[in-house]
Amino acid sequence: MPASASWMRPDQTALFTDLYQLTMLQAYVREGMHEEAVFDLFVRRLKHRNYLLACGLDTVLEFLETLRFSDEALGYLASLDLFRPDFLDFLADFRFTGSVYALREGTPFFPDEPVLQVVAPIGQAQLVETFLLNQITFQTGIASKASRVVHAAQGRPVADFGMRRMHGVDAPLKAARAYYIAGIASTSNLLAGHLYGLKVTGTMAHSYIEAHDHEADAFRAFAELYPGTTLLVDTYDTLDGVRRVVDLVRTHGLRVGAIRLDSGDLDTLARQARQILDEAGLADVRIFASGSLDEHRIARLLAQGIPIDAFGVGTRMGTMADAPYLDTAYKLSAYAGTPRMKLSAQKSNLPGRKQVYRLRDASGLAVQDVIATADEAHEGEPLLECVMRDGVRTEAGRRSLDEARAHAQDELQRLPERLRALDPADPPYPVVLSEALQARLDQTRHRLENGAGPANEAVNAPR
Amino acid sequence: MPASASWMRPDQTALFTDLYQLTMLQAYVREGMHEEAVFDLFVRRLKHRNYLLACGLDTVLEFLETLRFSDEALGYLASLDLFRPDFLDFLADFRFTGSVYALREGTPFFPDEPVLQVVAPIGQAQLVETFLLNQITFQTGIASKASRVVHAAQGRPVADFGMRRMHGVDAPLKAARAYYIAGIASTSNLLAGHLYGLKVTGTMAHSYIEAHDHEADAFRAFAELYPGTTLLVDTYDTLDGVRRVVDLVRTHGLRVGAIRLDSGDLDTLARQARQILDEAGLADVRIFASGSLDEHRIARLLAQGIPIDAFGVGTRMGTMADAPYLDTAYKLSAYAGTPRMKLSAQKSNLPGRKQVYRLRDASGLAVQDVIATADEAHEGEPLLECVMRDGVRTEAGRRSLDEARAHAQDELQRLPERLRALDPADPPYPVVLSEALQARLDQTRHRLENGAGPANEAVNAPR
Repeated sequence: MPASASWMRPDQTALFTDLYQLTMLQAYVREGMHEEAVFDLFVRRLKHRNYLLACGLDTVLEFLETLRFSDEALGYLASLDLFRPDFLDFLADFRFTGSVYALREGTPFFPDEPVLQVVAPIGQAQLVETFLLNQITFQTGIASKASRVVHAAQGRPVADFGMRRMHGVDAPLKAARAYYIAGIASTSNLLAGHLYGLKVTGTMAHSYIEAHDHEADAFRAFAELYPGTTLLVDTYDTLDGVRRVVDLVRTHGLRVGAIRLDSGDLDTLARQARQILDEAGLADVRIFASGSLDEHRIARLLAQGIPIDAFGVGTRMGTMADAPYLDTAYKLSAYAGTPRMKLSAQKSNLPGRKQVYRLRDASGLAVQDVIATADEAHEGEPLLECVMRDGVRTEAGRRSLDEARAHAQDELQRLPERLRALDPADPPYPVVLSEALQARLDQTRHRLENGAGPANEAVNAPR
Repeated sequence: MPASASWMRPDQTALFTDLYQLTMLQAYVREGMHEEAVFDLFVRRLKHRNYLLACGLDTVLEFLETLRFSDEALGYLASLDLFRPDFLDFLADFRFTGSVYALREGTPFFPDEPVLQVVAPIGQAQLVETFLLNQITFQTGIASKASRVVHAAQGRPVADFGMRRMHGVDAPLKAARAYYIAGIASTSNLLAGHLYGLKVTGTMAHSYIEAHDHEADAFRAFAELYPGTTLLVDTYDTLDGVRRVVDLVRTHGLRVGAIRLDSGDLDTLARQARQILDEAGLADVRIFASGSLDEHRIARLLAQGIPIDAFGVGTRMGTMADAPYLDTAYKLSAYAGTPRMKLSAQKSNLPGRKQVYRLRDASGLAVQDVIATADEAHEGEPLLECVMRDGVRTEAGRRSLDEARAHAQDELQRLPERLRALDPADPPYPVVLSEALQARLDQTRHRLENGAGPANEAVNAPR
């Protein structure tokens, strides 16, 4: 198998889609259906989260700007015996020419609010569904999870250690970027460090200790090479490990920045280690904890006053173990100027183009969001901004990663404390529909159920 | 941000690693520690699984064969102010020259059994940890999950619909391949279809129906373009949708292969839809179900005799929602000819090179596995085979995807039924240590705890 078979190349993103996007596109082309459609990407409901942190827009805009069907892609599609030559010619010239309205990366948001809205000829807007859902669902999900971990750590630095058990190579890459937006301090992921300019950190593995005949030899060699490093003390007897670190500093004069505890009873060991270090005059050697941590465990440790200065968090954050996916949807809300929706009670959606307004109290705290129609004037801060027009990013679509991080921090500080807390917010954040949107919803439903709409057309088949 | 910033290029895999792998490697080089190490990749315990299905070896071997530090990677590492010029020169010439022993892809296995064992100079074997864990953890996890879904479907085809809510772009790609090994029938993922030669299938989205003025128009246009297609009937009133399909076939003479139900009460709707189709003489139109399915829901539907002929399974399988990661470990088990281990009760490991033997009863059913030392003769079928020698794949390291799928099917049929069932196996599959391995374990532990080993060295720091 050639090396290229394992990884998606940047020129292959057009094939990162469900087959049905292409069969529907061919049908639209054949039926001459090229009118403007509006699709909303939103989350239906939250699980174990009080808010979400919008993330993934930059990847989406890059995808839309560069979306092309290469000769390789066209050759593959031709081989499927589903697509006609004139449609493949259409694909060869395909460009995304639509517009995108989106929440800024780092904006907290809530169910039913569009995190992005695509306005484009229907075939184009439909085709990109799979990619947009894939990247927004994951990046927003992981940023939202990380935001809770950062909150739990109460200002102590959190390092991302998750890449080894995350789902494939793209997840840890995109997560490291999302983590940065959410306030994570650093990542162990070198590729992410390289691609996104993130701070990379790391310590040492148990194997390094075990490969040496004596734990003290391993400590000494590492601290000589990396002054101020973090030493992993729990390979054999944890407190003996701590005493060896003391010896290294006091007898050998080496500089050690921190010890790492990765197993065992963190509550007891951290306290005992702190005591040993303090009694030896090493109050400036910090304690770094890792191993099966998540926001709940971190909160519990800190609530008990366990002396931990920094955390390494991996698998549970990186796989969003308590809620490994968001219930995202990408739904047609208008076509050819007419609002559209699905009638199902469970899976309904809000028809037409929309805007989200955030209302604040006098202190600046967010108190309520209103989902409104796009063309009404409403009080509050409008959250959706035009990030792409006619296939080209606007200035708002070119915000930097640092802007997103700063924006997230600002916005999170202006959420009510019950929302930022780990426990379920009671009451949840209120999101209501504007009168105009409610009227449009009622009208559209009425039209589909009782009027000339498709739900009421004659059914000729035998009943 | 340049387009290349979003995706890992094949020549960047060397940077897909935790920083500490590189800092440890530099330390090993500096200390002149180049002796042979043995690392085991294994799973500590299972959650919601009775067995695992080995998967990911092909990706790992491709990685090891092609692992190089490009000028770009070296430039990035140099910028970190952690690595010395002579070490960067060492990296420029770096090649993986070790050997790998592994379970064939598609082999069912159990906790503590090495799914692969790397034998290489310690720095090399250490460096590749992150990548190996990342790919084996995910690919094995997702193959194992899918194997349960296939079992639950009792021979009915299962289509992969998961890419939209999975974690990034690599996960759905690798999953589609793993699914094929586990017995999934097809994928909606075009890129996976292209790269791995998998069968691609798909239907239509609700938006396609909604964009038309009448549901019947959408059905007709799609069935004309794709004779024998599957039509999604639940956008408005599901049973009216089914009647429109009947009308399409009987009045318009169009060919329809199946209807798809994606929401609502599948139990009732599938029965009613079947009745409408049968009464109209359309017994050959199949019923395809999708929407929040997993192995448990499928098993329940079929146990109740609900007439469903095929399943589309997405998010819950694709995110392994009930167990989103495996508790994998990659542990040093020997260095310079001496067995090594971590003493921690929770996170111990088996020292030295090993072989796994599978014992069978007269009918061929697997009854017990024995983890043995690599150099003893033991009854049973040895499961670890040499797949790479001196950095080059052996013939056993070049098995095809079809071989892996056939192997998985054979091996799963030879597992006791209680293991293949969805409920926890009682008793779990027995895995024991050979006498020789038990003796080595005891000796190593004794040496570390009581002998001249590192755990017992003098601690000079004040107690």
